[in-house]
Amino acid sequence: MKTIWLGFMLLLSSLLSATELPLVQKQQLELAQFTTQSGAVLKQVKVGWEAYGSLNADKSNAILITHYFSGTSHAAGKYRSTDAAAGYWDSIIGPGKAIDTNQFYVLSVDSLANLNAFSPDVITTGPASLNPDTGKPYGLSFPVVTIRDFVEVQKALLDQLGIKKLYAVIGPSMGSFQAIEWAVSYPEKVERLMPVIGTAYIDSFSAVRLERWAQPIKQDPAWNKGAYPLTQQPQGLTRALAYVIQDALHPDLFNQSYPAPALDKAIHQAIQAELPAWSQLMIAAKQRSAQMDANSLLYLVRASQLWRAGMGDNWQQQLKSVKAKTLWLPATGDLLLTPAMAKHSKAQMPDALYEEISGQAGHLDGLLNIQSKAEQIRQFLAQ
Amino acid sequence: MKTIWLGFMLLLSSLLSATELPLVQKQQLELAQFTTQSGAVLKQVKVGWEAYGSLNADKSNAILITHYFSGTSHAAGKYRSTDAAAGYWDSIIGPGKAIDTNQFYVLSVDSLANLNAFSPDVITTGPASLNPDTGKPYGLSFPVVTIRDFVEVQKALLDQLGIKKLYAVIGPSMGSFQAIEWAVSYPEKVERLMPVIGTAYIDSFSAVRLERWAQPIKQDPAWNKGAYPLTQQPQGLTRALAYVIQDALHPDLFNQSYPAPALDKAIHQAIQAELPAWSQLMIAAKQRSAQMDANSLLYLVRASQLWRAGMGDNWQQQLKSVKAKTLWLPATGDLLLTPAMAKHSKAQMPDALYEEISGQAGHLDGLLNIQSKAEQIRQFLAQ
Repeated sequence: MKTIWLGFMLLLSSLLSATELPLVQKQQLELAQFTTQSGAVLKQVKVGWEAYGSLNADKSNAILITHYFSGTSHAAGKYRSTDAAAGYWDSIIGPGKAIDTNQFYVLSVDSLANLNAFSPDVITTGPASLNPDTGKPYGLSFPVVTIRDFVEVQKALLDQLGIKKLYAVIGPSMGSFQAIEWAVSYPEKVERLMPVIGTAYIDSFSAVRLERWAQPIKQDPAWNKGAYPLTQQPQGLTRALAYVIQDALHPDLFNQSYPAPALDKAIHQAIQAELPAWSQLMIAAKQRSAQMDANSLLYLVRASQLWRAGMGDNWQQQLKSVKAKTLWLPATGDLLLTPAMAKHSKAQMPDALYEEISGQAGHLDGLLNIQSKAEQIRQFLAQ
Repeated sequence: MKTIWLGFMLLLSSLLSATELPLVQKQQLELAQFTTQSGAVLKQVKVGWEAYGSLNADKSNAILITHYFSGTSHAAGKYRSTDAAAGYWDSIIGPGKAIDTNQFYVLSVDSLANLNAFSPDVITTGPASLNPDTGKPYGLSFPVVTIRDFVEVQKALLDQLGIKKLYAVIGPSMGSFQAIEWAVSYPEKVERLMPVIGTAYIDSFSAVRLERWAQPIKQDPAWNKGAYPLTQQPQGLTRALAYVIQDALHPDLFNQSYPAPALDKAIHQAIQAELPAWSQLMIAAKQRSAQMDANSLLYLVRASQLWRAGMGDNWQQQLKSVKAKTLWLPATGDLLLTPAMAKHSKAQMPDALYEEISGQAGHLDGLLNIQSKAEQIRQFLAQ
């Protein structure tokens, strides 16, 4: 196994061969205008969305899945039977699975400023989009967007669909932020909340670590303060992705995927020689970032840095307004959004349930090993 | 308290007022030539060293202290009574302290390629030194140096002083690498070994994290592949130090020193606005790096990346040759060289003792909170 991402692909492939995945269709939500939390008015906002299962007659069976930092609405299924990649949570979303699409109408929406701005399967409005007023890409003239903004876009979709209540909101990592913000902002509309590898706040330590994802881009002269040609992404984007990949992994799995430096002769002899594990990580990062946009990464970093439940000055107090039944699912080995953060968040919600996902992947266990909590998820949704 | 480093300074200041620190003198070791592990021959190698206490008649009371990544030989005392800063382990080294200089002759040596190349109190030979053959700075023509090389330079000093055995070798972090390498390379010469916040190997996860300290320098055009004017250090050095500072701290202490982003209006309104915690960290890093050299950081990163006990292909086997009584002292909250790494190392040494330093500082507890283990250290040295 050359890289962990290759491993991830192989895992998905084996899932594909084991079970036939349903085909899903990307759809588009368009809003004539959208006012951000920062007060900016965006025209012609478009985001992609998709759904699995059927909405029942009284529209009471909708479950919203909110995606992670580098993710998209593609939580389950395949767009085309020939697709290599499938949904990131196929192990728990589908007919007869923990989030049973025979019972629930499961939907998910691409975020604003989605990182995969150039994926043909992603529809997003962000710094790489054309500003209708100028016909040119927004670049850094795009306003700061927040987790609350992502929630409001999702709510606009639900309003169009006539869905007044959510049976559950479930999301991993940055998706947990959106899920929690739903439950805080609309306590009457959210019946169940499941933050996976999540937290109700970003502390200064985590905000600075996020900043370290942004720095290779900002430090790259080709970034040109955000005014690069979109088809020539600054190389700093690759470095940023390398850091995202490592920070999402526990050493146990990282060390299985990347070679230890001890026996490489070149690095013992020449200071210019590159650490083999670094070269390999950069190759993985280059592949992963092929359809991504550097400025969009900066906007998602900022949205994540600003995160705290309710987006006010007291996230602890805001959490108390949540009425949803809540199940926290942090990953034991998570070094990015640690179980300590989940516990500190949960402490404000005395009735919330809490279980840890074990595994070797760290933060990524929230994706790779979520099926280990399938039964608990099924039971939680049955309550 | 504006930054953790300020806090550290204040702590040292209070220690200074509480106890009168002995004055120590920086001395110089000069070697006409030195052959590195990589086979390069360096001429006129000079390193600084210092000692506390007195060598006894049979030269049996010497304790070598080996320093950390950004450290120097200055483990204890003050060079001048007017100095603001004092030794980094003043809390455990001195008359009547855990490492009692009334009893022991305690000495320490500046590393090759010492990071603080421009400190008037540091003497080192590294990429910022003039190559005697050319009269110009070595830059990247300086050979790769290893932990073994640091040990061999220290041994040359002990040979000059006629010290044939070390009562103990003790060092924190990168200093633990040197201490372990002493005990592996010269098992008959080392009676006691105390790796503090240490490990007997660097895995690929840690090697890549170290590479992330090097990247801001390598990515900086002003670095110019190592051929920058020494008086104009590339700005990437400051970023590198910022990463070093954060990676050495646990969130518990970091969050006390740097502000949470929630209530800063500018970062909610403008993507160009800088995260306050980041700005503050960069100011601390700028101060900390004022006498440092960017290329030297790259050499210390490489020396650390290459570290495994015995520098061969089987560090586990090499550890079995250690004859020294051993006490491992990792820090419970260490996220850089984790207790898991110390435990995995110790597992090869069934007779070794193991105790964890607790505290809020993480890796830095090996410096800031070492006095919490003063009694255990005293007892270990009495055995």
